Amino acid sequence: MKNIFEDIPDDVSAEVFENLVENQNVTIERIISEGHSSPDSGWYDQEKNEWVLVLQGEAIISLYNESSVHLKEGDYLNIKAHQKHKVAWTAPDIKTIWLAVHY
Amino acid sequence: MKNIFEDIPDDVSAEVFENLVENQNVTIERIISEGHSSPDSGWYDQEKNEWVLVLQGEAIISLYNESSVHLKEGDYLNIKAHQKHKVAWTAPDIKTIWLAVHY
Repeated sequence: MKNIFEDIPDDVSAEVFENLVENQNVTIERIISEGHSSPDSGWYDQEKNEWVLVLQGEAIISLYNESSVHLKEGDYLNIKAHQKHKVAWTAPDIKTIWLAVHY
Repeated sequence: MKNIFEDIPDDVSAEVFENLVENQNVTIERIISEGHSSPDSGWYDQEKNEWVLVLQGEAIISLYNESSVHLKEGDYLNIKAHQKHKVAWTAPDIKTIWLAVHY
């Protein structure tokens, strides 16, 4: 048993990605951001669907050709495969902890 | 976008199970318990692996032939397929909110 809020690195100058579960069908990942956002140019375009849940902090996800989504604690969003998206903003003053399920 | 802590039914006299995502490979489910536990006899014996995260509340999971696990907020546990298990206890005074990924 582990805790999703523990073992948070002090230094998240680079975003931290950690696979909690991984098999051929699904990856469950913890992501820790602190003021990070995607590069201005380009979009994520993923083969798999991604379900994300913000466990702590705040983030804004931009969806190509759709409205941006501001996620706060407890908010979750399903991003379908090939829905182009990027992280436009994460809170600068708190570590944002995401749970992401790639499936 | 929805929030995992919202739309909680007042009456959880029966446990509440809600699929958030479902396809052939994975089901992401929210479960709400309040003092519930599995029947005394019998064990869950599932075809799929199950990853569970307690988002609110507390629970004790019994694992067949292994030690019980007391899960508090943020604790997560991976239950492999066919690992017999049951919910021995959930907190009686708060709604326990689980995220479960069956994969």
